[in-house]
Amino acid sequence: MKQRIYLDNAATTALHPEVAQTMYETSISIFGNPSSIHQDGVRARNLIEESRRKISDILHCSPGQIYFTSGGTEANNMILRSVIELQQIKTVYTTYIEHPCILNPLSELQKKFNFKIQFISVTNAGIIDYEELESKLSNDHEKKLVSLMQLNNELGSVHDLSIIAKICKLHSAYFHSDTTQSIGLMPMNAEELGIDFFCGSAHKFHGPKGIGFVYFKEPGLHQALIHGGGQERNMRSGTENTIGIAGLTKALELIHQNKNSILTHLEFLNQYCKQQLSQHFPQLEFFGTKETTHPKILTFHCPSFSGIEMLLINLDIHGISVSGGSACSSGAEKKSHVMQQLKPDSDGRSIRISFAYNNTKVEIDQLILVLKKLLPNQE
Amino acid sequence: MKQRIYLDNAATTALHPEVAQTMYETSISIFGNPSSIHQDGVRARNLIEESRRKISDILHCSPGQIYFTSGGTEANNMILRSVIELQQIKTVYTTYIEHPCILNPLSELQKKFNFKIQFISVTNAGIIDYEELESKLSNDHEKKLVSLMQLNNELGSVHDLSIIAKICKLHSAYFHSDTTQSIGLMPMNAEELGIDFFCGSAHKFHGPKGIGFVYFKEPGLHQALIHGGGQERNMRSGTENTIGIAGLTKALELIHQNKNSILTHLEFLNQYCKQQLSQHFPQLEFFGTKETTHPKILTFHCPSFSGIEMLLINLDIHGISVSGGSACSSGAEKKSHVMQQLKPDSDGRSIRISFAYNNTKVEIDQLILVLKKLLPNQE
Repeated sequence: MKQRIYLDNAATTALHPEVAQTMYETSISIFGNPSSIHQDGVRARNLIEESRRKISDILHCSPGQIYFTSGGTEANNMILRSVIELQQIKTVYTTYIEHPCILNPLSELQKKFNFKIQFISVTNAGIIDYEELESKLSNDHEKKLVSLMQLNNELGSVHDLSIIAKICKLHSAYFHSDTTQSIGLMPMNAEELGIDFFCGSAHKFHGPKGIGFVYFKEPGLHQALIHGGGQERNMRSGTENTIGIAGLTKALELIHQNKNSILTHLEFLNQYCKQQLSQHFPQLEFFGTKETTHPKILTFHCPSFSGIEMLLINLDIHGISVSGGSACSSGAEKKSHVMQQLKPDSDGRSIRISFAYNNTKVEIDQLILVLKKLLPNQE
Repeated sequence: MKQRIYLDNAATTALHPEVAQTMYETSISIFGNPSSIHQDGVRARNLIEESRRKISDILHCSPGQIYFTSGGTEANNMILRSVIELQQIKTVYTTYIEHPCILNPLSELQKKFNFKIQFISVTNAGIIDYEELESKLSNDHEKKLVSLMQLNNELGSVHDLSIIAKICKLHSAYFHSDTTQSIGLMPMNAEELGIDFFCGSAHKFHGPKGIGFVYFKEPGLHQALIHGGGQERNMRSGTENTIGIAGLTKALELIHQNKNSILTHLEFLNQYCKQQLSQHFPQLEFFGTKETTHPKILTFHCPSFSGIEMLLINLDIHGISVSGGSACSSGAEKKSHVMQQLKPDSDGRSIRISFAYNNTKVEIDQLILVLKKLLPNQE
């Protein structure tokens, strides 16, 4: 069978072979309940605490600030509920282009708690106006939370967390960043940054699905979403996913060790792909520039072309996986909430190409070749 | 290295080798995001829906009634919050000997919702008085929930769900059973039983940790605990744990296919162990009888013997893993909440031995041999 070309690495990534091997070895050698006091339990407990230490070393925080969760979505739910409820937040500052695992919990929480949501406007490249944020915060003297993702999953646009963290500190706002898409690929120095909350999900960086973590700067900012046996220092009950934790840790170590060469490779793929697309399809509009986007993601808009469903299906038939937006909104049938914001009047549609360390130039050439058969109005 | 003897299968079980193999094969072959519309996504989606069908076949329900969760604890949290909040439950009937993943969510929910908890008394064998339950329900004409576990994790005591389901139906009470300890080892015919809510956790039947499921009879009884991308028909957001789901399904299929021979084996091990213990340590008190307990679990009380910590540690040094209660309460330091109920005045302690298909008579003989060196007052 001919190898498929997978260019949807923002939706999820293939397990790194070494991660698969680590998980398999863990699965046949460590099985105790980490809460058991006997050796079988202690071995599982050691695996977890050793993993927590390795992860916190990479993120420049203390192991006690990391809690394992079932993924980024649970982590973001836990953060938002904790801070909004415990700190009695009056206003949350965010954008319309956050992931649904921010926007949906916020709208659910609004049914229960009395707070406003203020949407900061974003440029067509998906970047907020930092001055607008500062101006809004400086006029707000009540309890407030800023929730802004680092790397937008649909656009690839990147926010400078250090600028936002400084603004938040200056105006006494809690600062949360959904870093699900960026952890592993972008540096994180939690201590230096002074961020209050962020999270990660292993399947975004060649680890397994169903495991992630959440960072809480202060234990007092935290309340449990799931109650029971008191695991994770009473903050996340449920027997720990030991095999998943082993996979998460290995995946984060691998991507961290190779981050420079991976970044260079992604930059090459992204620029080459963009150059080829621009050359052969001059009508395409790209979101952002090299300066405002991460090379993992290349998103472009096809104006006056609503046949994106058929295009994605035809690419799929030709063995190429790309996306019409985020996987969650399943791109095809309708515009994503992000594109509705950025291109409200266009009847065109967008395509997101997202790269990983294991993509090649040959794959990009093949993509261009197939697109030349499928896209209208080429030169 | 000498093989250890693992007799703590109520805390968790070793992964079945075939489950480890299935998970490894899944991990290197299926990686797409199940929400993606391309072939890589479709393959992951098919794995999930095929798994859901296999699980629902075994449990005699429809696939649409099963939702995947990160385990039994999340499932029980989801159930309790859904029914108490949505149905505006006025009284929850339960026992003091439920798992912490029932008792702790209930006490958290009491801070937010206005309902009473009525504790049904249990015999020394850990069984409720069915007539007391019926009498209480018949006098209660408000919205009510009965939450009673099928197989008690500390005592091995078994409740007859069909009797409880009939009583609940007669008196219009919602019926939830925490079946985390029993799924796989005890038959479940959801349709025939008419139960409203139950759950399962793969690591209790030789599957992986971090994956489980919840059963909801009616979708209208259900609300999400975790919000986001709308996975699991909007009831449990977060990218699905595909490798875990593959492992869960394989583990449930294996234990289901071999349930008769496994049960016979557990009965043999339990009876042999009990007979040997009774013969060599006549002072021990066993909880329940063959009729009231499941052969998976054999729990006994050592009266006038508070040195259980040292006993467990010494057993561990001799390569034997057993437990002083549930893993969650970590047995050693203090009496579990269950034993505080059943043996409030005793300064003795209890030991739980729990068996699996892969334990042997030779292991029991070794346990007895070691206990003869360690336990006081033997004949």
